[in-house]
Amino acid sequence: MQAKLKLFIENALLQKIIITLIIINAVLLGLETSDAIMAKAGTPILLLDKAILVVFVVEIVCRMIVYRLGFWKDPWSLFDFAVVAIALVPASGAFSVLRALRVLRVLRLLTLVPSMRRVVGALLGAVPGLISIAFVLLIIYYVFAVIATNLFADQYPEWFGNIGLSLYTLFQIMTLESWSMGIARPVMENFPYAWAFFIPFILVATFTMLNLFIAIIVNAMQTFSEQENKEAIEAVHELDTDLHGELKMLRQEVYALRQLLTKGHL
Amino acid sequence: MQAKLKLFIENALLQKIIITLIIINAVLLGLETSDAIMAKAGTPILLLDKAILVVFVVEIVCRMIVYRLGFWKDPWSLFDFAVVAIALVPASGAFSVLRALRVLRVLRLLTLVPSMRRVVGALLGAVPGLISIAFVLLIIYYVFAVIATNLFADQYPEWFGNIGLSLYTLFQIMTLESWSMGIARPVMENFPYAWAFFIPFILVATFTMLNLFIAIIVNAMQTFSEQENKEAIEAVHELDTDLHGELKMLRQEVYALRQLLTKGHL
Amino acid sequence: MQAKLKLFIENALLQKIIITLIIINAVLLGLETSDAIMAKAGTPILLLDKAILVVFVVEIVCRMIVYRLGFWKDPWSLFDFAVVAIALVPASGAFSVLRALRVLRVLRLLTLVPSMRRVVGALLGAVPGLISIAFVLLIIYYVFAVIATNLFADQYPEWFGNIGLSLYTLFQIMTLESWSMGIARPVMENFPYAWAFFIPFILVATFTMLNLFIAIIVNAMQTFSEQENKEAIEAVHELDTDLHGELKMLRQEVYALRQLLTKGHL
Amino acid sequence: MQAKLKLFIENALLQKIIITLIIINAVLLGLETSDAIMAKAGTPILLLDKAILVVFVVEIVCRMIVYRLGFWKDPWSLFDFAVVAIALVPASGAFSVLRALRVLRVLRLLTLVPSMRRVVGALLGAVPGLISIAFVLLIIYYVFAVIATNLFADQYPEWFGNIGLSLYTLFQIMTLESWSMGIARPVMENFPYAWAFFIPFILVATFTMLNLFIAIIVNAMQTFSEQENKEAIEAVHELDTDLHGELKMLRQEVYALRQLLTKGHL
Repeated sequence: MQAKLKLFIENALLQKIIITLIIINAVLLGLETSDAIMAKAGTPILLLDKAILVVFVVEIVCRMIVYRLGFWKDPWSLFDFAVVAIALVPASGAFSVLRALRVLRVLRLLTLVPSMRRVVGALLGAVPGLISIAFVLLIIYYVFAVIATNLFADQYPEWFGNIGLSLYTLFQIMTLESWSMGIARPVMENFPYAWAFFIPFILVATFTMLNLFIAIIVNAMQTFSEQENKEAIEAVHELDTDLHGELKMLRQEVYALRQLLTKGHL
Repeated sequence: MQAKLKLFIENALLQKIIITLIIINAVLLGLETSDAIMAKAGTPILLLDKAILVVFVVEIVCRMIVYRLGFWKDPWSLFDFAVVAIALVPASGAFSVLRALRVLRVLRLLTLVPSMRRVVGALLGAVPGLISIAFVLLIIYYVFAVIATNLFADQYPEWFGNIGLSLYTLFQIMTLESWSMGIARPVMENFPYAWAFFIPFILVATFTMLNLFIAIIVNAMQTFSEQENKEAIEAVHELDTDLHGELKMLRQEVYALRQLLTKGHL
Repeated sequence: MQAKLKLFIENALLQKIIITLIIINAVLLGLETSDAIMAKAGTPILLLDKAILVVFVVEIVCRMIVYRLGFWKDPWSLFDFAVVAIALVPASGAFSVLRALRVLRVLRLLTLVPSMRRVVGALLGAVPGLISIAFVLLIIYYVFAVIATNLFADQYPEWFGNIGLSLYTLFQIMTLESWSMGIARPVMENFPYAWAFFIPFILVATFTMLNLFIAIIVNAMQTFSEQENKEAIEAVHELDTDLHGELKMLRQEVYALRQLLTKGHL
Repeated sequence: MQAKLKLFIENALLQKIIITLIIINAVLLGLETSDAIMAKAGTPILLLDKAILVVFVVEIVCRMIVYRLGFWKDPWSLFDFAVVAIALVPASGAFSVLRALRVLRVLRLLTLVPSMRRVVGALLGAVPGLISIAFVLLIIYYVFAVIATNLFADQYPEWFGNIGLSLYTLFQIMTLESWSMGIARPVMENFPYAWAFFIPFILVATFTMLNLFIAIIVNAMQTFSEQENKEAIEAVHELDTDLHGELKMLRQEVYALRQLLTKGHL
């Protein structure tokens, strides 16, 4: 029974049907955003949406039965489970935002289409190498946010009223969006030396960001460069083995000659 | 007849004349944008423009005759055909925008001047390697656009009124243009947690964009690095063959010597 | 006594306690920015803050005693000393800004946690290679700032009133923030050719910045590429030594054989 | 006489004096921008400025005498000549802008300090490799500018009134400054499909710009990677020569043995 289910689940055709359903579902979720279309054809759209959801739930339940514990250990499965589960939570009251998140289901395309799965895997694979530099950036952020709150909270409560607001404003400044005309120049009207806060922050934050980005490039390069170097060194070692073998045979020849001579002359 | 035409078409001088005509045409199309100049010298400019167009049409027709099916298989030829054909469609009524597109003809410079053709070829050559990552970006876009439309359409119809508007606004946000002062801060007045939508979008979209860009660098590097590594490994293999041969001959020498001795002594 | 103190200071447990205290201190300094929280629980927060400061001072004094001159030669120690010392300066009157800088203490995390220390070390390590290019950028800045002040000071005193303001405005322009709509277009109303100042500045400044950034990538790459090349060349040399020795021994073998024969036959 | 002058001109001490004078001159030119300082100490500053200019003129004239034609062939010399010559042109009437350009003299630091000269040389050295891609960018610009002028000139004369204005606005859009909130959204009020003009332009222009930048990185990398590969291949060739030599000696030894045997037995 379970073996049969496994065959069914891992069937290439089923995969393609699921992918097609996700794409149809994506279009439906797009149509649902339009009031005009919903007024005309709301019922069939919602019905189809529900039907596709049922297929997804059945598929996930099947995979749970087939892979058991393995299902919960595979991060891709967990992701599939999470985005389907969102649709099952009654989206009312405090959870009404979940209604909008139902479209996350479409992201299952990234886990099902192999070429995209590879891209997402590569993107996520770059993350661990960035953690310590991201922490450094976070600490710098926090320090600057506390300083900004201490200095500017009273006069610019909208931008620096508390640490949360300061962190948001500093993020905006790091993206260089309206940092000067929108934030720094108005602040400098009351604090003429505020540039001594903003410019170092921009330099430090963008320099660190830049290094985060350089780290990804250099890592990617290092991986294939090491691979190539290994190939080159292997070629040298093969040469070594090869010539050694040849030399050994030559030595045996000379040895045989010497044996012959010594025997012959004694 | 056709062979003669081919000689004529592939003549280097004709190429240069065509390039010169395109440059003159580019200047004319520039002059045509100025009402003042057109009032003074409109008739000769338009006549010259027409004359050059006739030359282009004749040249393309000649190439069609010479290369036959080959013409329609070469993407550069198709491009040439398309930009010349635009000028022949009567640009009136619904097609009046085609009038403005006549200047696309100038892009033929990119297909005719060899050094530029190489640059354009390299630019286009980078595209296939980016398709799967671009698809990932597109899916992320679509998902965020649907969420944004669901959440913000009622209150900010100008920015997120439908999926099209949301996609445009998200593109603007990804370029970081006025994302905070222009979009996110106003939205946060009604949705205080909107930053939890905008900041993740910016991080995910710019990180993916960045990796798209890193992919181009790493690809370019990999190409020449592999080439160089191949050269190095080849040098090692040549050395191998060389010494191998040398050693083998030496062994035969010693073997011959032994044969000589065995014969001599028996 | 001093040896005991050294053991105590270099104890891994103490390091962890200090790191924990810094994190607690970071949270406290964050809480202190909120008036609401300070009204409710101000006294214990400030007391805890003071207590942690005492621990930091004691730790630094111990390290001064243990390492003596060595303490003052280590830049990390100097940094620790500076950020702790800020808290001891009475922050009143002209020094009231120091109150806000007390949070710099949190940056000690960067010097204590090894993985972050490595990141900061790498970031700072990239700086020396950038000094000469940064100087070039500085000179270009200064020259453009003097020109801008000469040309625009009278009509746009807020942006180009003196060299300081011009430098700030040019920095804003280099970050591309509102350079056109905010600065260049208004200036062009009075100076129609002002674009001939702004566009070259943007091109030169961003091109130089870019090269600063490229210098970091290329440097990072060069370091590991050289390392790998060295490994490959070493492998070749090892092979050389190895085969050389082998061949030499074989030659001696043959030589000995000849000696044997010459002796035996004469 | 000329030889003496040459010794004098190429004296390291003189170089240092000139560099010091340029720095003093830079400070003076900075001070001259301040009306307050000029009111107090205008006369000595202007006198010192004039005096330094005289020294520069004398130095350049000496170099002209010493190097003769060589002076006019060296681009660095031509640059020195140009920036000093600007100060000698009477800066009145139409040339009053030259007054502001006198500060270009300070750029002589870039040609005199060796480390900066190297940086500037490297920056300029990257330019030739970018010419063809820059041309492609220019043609794309021109085409888009003509289209924009044709489409939008009537309704947005301030931004797209003629080709010059369109080129400027497109440059602004390429730097992503206010492209959407400032330009594209207002334009889309009259031309709802204007996004089909702006978004392709942004994609094409930034993608081409990016490749311009990638070209610099890849070029820089290729240079040192080729150098390293050459070293590795050389190491292999050295190994070849070395082992060949050794093998030749071995062969001679075997040959000598054979001679001995043949002689002995015949």
